[in-house]
Amino acid sequence: MSSPAGGPVFADRVLNDWLSSVGLGIEYSRAEANTLYYVDEDGQEVPVLDHVCGFGSLIFGHNNPDIVAHAKTVLDRQVPVYVQLSHQSHANDIAAVLNAILRREIPGGDGDYAAIFANSGAEAVEICVKHAELERRARVAKLTDETSRNAEEAREAVGAGRATVAENPYVRFDGASGESDRLEQLLAEAGRRNAELIARGPVHLALENAFHGKLVASIQLTQNPHWRLPFTSLASSTRFLRADRPDEMKAAVEELRTSLLDVLVDDGVVTVVERDFPLVGAFFVEPVQGANGMRPLTGAAAREIRAVCDAVGCPLIVDEIHSGMGRTGAFLASSHMGLRGDYYTLAKSIGGGIAKNAVALFHRDRFRPEFEVMHSSTFAKDGFSAAIALKVLEMLEADDGRAYRIAAERGDRLKGALTAVAADFPDVVDAVHGIGLMLAVEFKDQTGASSEPLREKAASGMLGYLIAGLILREHRIRVLPVGPAGNSVRFEPSIYLTDADIARTENALRDVCTILRDQDGDRLTP
Amino acid sequence: MSSPAGGPVFADRVLNDWLSSVGLGIEYSRAEANTLYYVDEDGQEVPVLDHVCGFGSLIFGHNNPDIVAHAKTVLDRQVPVYVQLSHQSHANDIAAVLNAILRREIPGGDGDYAAIFANSGAEAVEICVKHAELERRARVAKLTDETSRNAEEAREAVGAGRATVAENPYVRFDGASGESDRLEQLLAEAGRRNAELIARGPVHLALENAFHGKLVASIQLTQNPHWRLPFTSLASSTRFLRADRPDEMKAAVEELRTSLLDVLVDDGVVTVVERDFPLVGAFFVEPVQGANGMRPLTGAAAREIRAVCDAVGCPLIVDEIHSGMGRTGAFLASSHMGLRGDYYTLAKSIGGGIAKNAVALFHRDRFRPEFEVMHSSTFAKDGFSAAIALKVLEMLEADDGRAYRIAAERGDRLKGALTAVAADFPDVVDAVHGIGLMLAVEFKDQTGASSEPLREKAASGMLGYLIAGLILREHRIRVLPVGPAGNSVRFEPSIYLTDADIARTENALRDVCTILRDQDGDRLTP
Repeated sequence: MSSPAGGPVFADRVLNDWLSSVGLGIEYSRAEANTLYYVDEDGQEVPVLDHVCGFGSLIFGHNNPDIVAHAKTVLDRQVPVYVQLSHQSHANDIAAVLNAILRREIPGGDGDYAAIFANSGAEAVEICVKHAELERRARVAKLTDETSRNAEEAREAVGAGRATVAENPYVRFDGASGESDRLEQLLAEAGRRNAELIARGPVHLALENAFHGKLVASIQLTQNPHWRLPFTSLASSTRFLRADRPDEMKAAVEELRTSLLDVLVDDGVVTVVERDFPLVGAFFVEPVQGANGMRPLTGAAAREIRAVCDAVGCPLIVDEIHSGMGRTGAFLASSHMGLRGDYYTLAKSIGGGIAKNAVALFHRDRFRPEFEVMHSSTFAKDGFSAAIALKVLEMLEADDGRAYRIAAERGDRLKGALTAVAADFPDVVDAVHGIGLMLAVEFKDQTGASSEPLREKAASGMLGYLIAGLILREHRIRVLPVGPAGNSVRFEPSIYLTDADIARTENALRDVCTILRDQDGDRLTP
Repeated sequence: MSSPAGGPVFADRVLNDWLSSVGLGIEYSRAEANTLYYVDEDGQEVPVLDHVCGFGSLIFGHNNPDIVAHAKTVLDRQVPVYVQLSHQSHANDIAAVLNAILRREIPGGDGDYAAIFANSGAEAVEICVKHAELERRARVAKLTDETSRNAEEAREAVGAGRATVAENPYVRFDGASGESDRLEQLLAEAGRRNAELIARGPVHLALENAFHGKLVASIQLTQNPHWRLPFTSLASSTRFLRADRPDEMKAAVEELRTSLLDVLVDDGVVTVVERDFPLVGAFFVEPVQGANGMRPLTGAAAREIRAVCDAVGCPLIVDEIHSGMGRTGAFLASSHMGLRGDYYTLAKSIGGGIAKNAVALFHRDRFRPEFEVMHSSTFAKDGFSAAIALKVLEMLEADDGRAYRIAAERGDRLKGALTAVAADFPDVVDAVHGIGLMLAVEFKDQTGASSEPLREKAASGMLGYLIAGLILREHRIRVLPVGPAGNSVRFEPSIYLTDADIARTENALRDVCTILRDQDGDRLTP
């Protein structure tokens, strides 16, 4: 079934017009490895080198023949796909492989992470938000149990005449008739303040320019204001921090410190003690920030973030949705900077370019076992995507991790080419960022360009899209912009990138740089 | 790759132990139509009749041969799966088919609904929450634009001596020196109150015993307290209503009425006018409440709900994730009760039992076009699940809707059998609920049973699971409990249910009823 060409438009009405306006309105008809094909006006198939590769979800390329063959075998074998609430050992098979890898890659890793499956990266992040809240509530409950016990002890001590109630900044004891009355006034005020604090939702921490998804909780963790600000009143808020400014980070966390009021009997006097309240839910961190133009964390920043989480007592959630699954030359990008997470998220390439799968991993020491029966999803942990995930993991780990080595080597080669262009065009290119097959070229700001079209497009944040349109139109290479200012172009191909692909990419980039150097704005317009 | 049997358990540690304890700890190895197979100790394949069918996501059964063949063709053709930000006409192809169906089924339907794709039903609900918030914010902005204009007009009138400021319940005008000063005091207080109201998130409406998913926003709309309560401080709250008590429903909505303060000049006097504030985000409604033991809305309830939404001005979101895609004998279950939605959600069977797909549909009059470029998902709108969705829709619509007629006929036949058992065991069965292939048998409460094991299991909410365990063990039929008390057993097979399947099901149910009548609690324990 298909709608007639020229018929009414029900989906992507605005999006498709916009894509056409920037020169990206192409429909692809076939895909293989790093190549997308479209059919031109003469009916000829035109190949396009794809550097977007499913926003990084195609470590083994489009329609990888081994994965496709495996998928067909799974279908032929009539593997059960949706059989919720039965034993589904593939869940543990995947989790066991992941734990073995984590043991190898995490510094000091003891490799017991419980796995909860999801259908997308954003869902995995939502699951982490839920689980962190369970953790936080358990810490709150422990605190309130203690304050309740202490209140009872104070009541007994005061009732027995063994203690008096000290003056304090919280209650003025207007009209109190005796110590017991003073104590009850104090407990009432402390209880009121504590209840107010407990009713507030958590605050999450994330880094500036973070991207963690676009569902209702995950969009709060994705800094881009265009995507996030309309939805801030829907869910718990996020404090965005800069990992490269540890003092600012510490100060911001200090600002979030709040206390529960506790009442203690000390040497015959009831006094009020402030107890640290767990306001912070979790710290979400991408080891390589895709939406920040593919910038990896430094080792120093990784240590500061770990220290903040340890001080606050909140889980550190390492979001490897974009960077994980081998893309950076290791299974986890975080292993490059020695960042140890309490939770991990994985998605994208775990689907093998065909299926949809995601997983959240929780260190056993923090895992709340009740979560396994509280949370569920009709589509998650299905037999089809699980079989493909196992195949992808097998391919990654084969030959002692040959795929990781290729990712690193191809990435270095591509980065070398990008860096060579940057060196030849220092007036036009700001920097090359990234690691492995997760790279970006950051162009210099053009909002002060002498060419009017360049200046205009830069001011409206559209320059990166027009560059992508030109590279597609004139070089048959698909790239997309990335980065906070949309000034960068992303490169995240599969490991099957050839030397010829790299040479073509370098050539296209030199062309763009020449246009920018010559301020030839007209050539950029489709 | 698979983990060795008896190795460490990383996934489903608690869940699998619990499934085993209630007799449901079986691993299925093959699935076809309504039958799951497991391999017994002698290596023999044992068939199990499946009435759960992927929580209703298998309208065409497990591994439907036509859908499997189509999936393999799609893979062979190297269809591009993940090509974000390109023209993907399959999105519009699906949306066009859905709009044609909606035009046919929705009373007075004019059939222009914009489609946004997702990866699971829960994601589709989250998308609706986001879109409803965009709508609400637009209404708030319109209101605040008006109040700002009115404030300016009042300033001009008072400044020119054309108006005085009336006494009002909001400000006491302590120490005001003249009309302009009084006006500024009034505007400051109104501004403060208005800002506080605007900063509050929305309140959503849903029905008691609703199920709308388990992500951070959708879990707030799913009433089950065990799943929801630990997470209520994470996102906007829900007011749960009873559709069968219209007066209560109206009163609850009336309670949520809040006003923005506006300042108007009327006949030379500045007065404060209360303007209705859009606090309610949306009303989420399932036409057949799965988690409420498969209870359909009545036509009267549907009319009341529509009237509430029209009065409040909020979108009515008809959640057809569970009930849609033909399961009740029509494409939309809501068409049975003449319920017209502003948004619709679909998932489950749209994945064809292999893929994961979901869609949210927005009436064009309410759709905010900017949503197409604000919201996105790496996995959504992919070529693989889209091709399967088109195949499923084609199969549903084929032969003038033969599949719907079969669903209705098979559903009637199965319901007849369940009703016959209920009639013979009025002491044990409370009722049979549901429509089409979305049915449940509700057993009478056993918390006062004379059998101690029955009484205990009923008190802990486990009776339904033990009934499911018995039916699986002794009759090789897979059912699962449902409903607020876990006292019901669900039946949502595919349209390929045979008369023999129905006879076996009736027989198994009579066995369970006899056990309950005889209070033979020991037979229920695995």
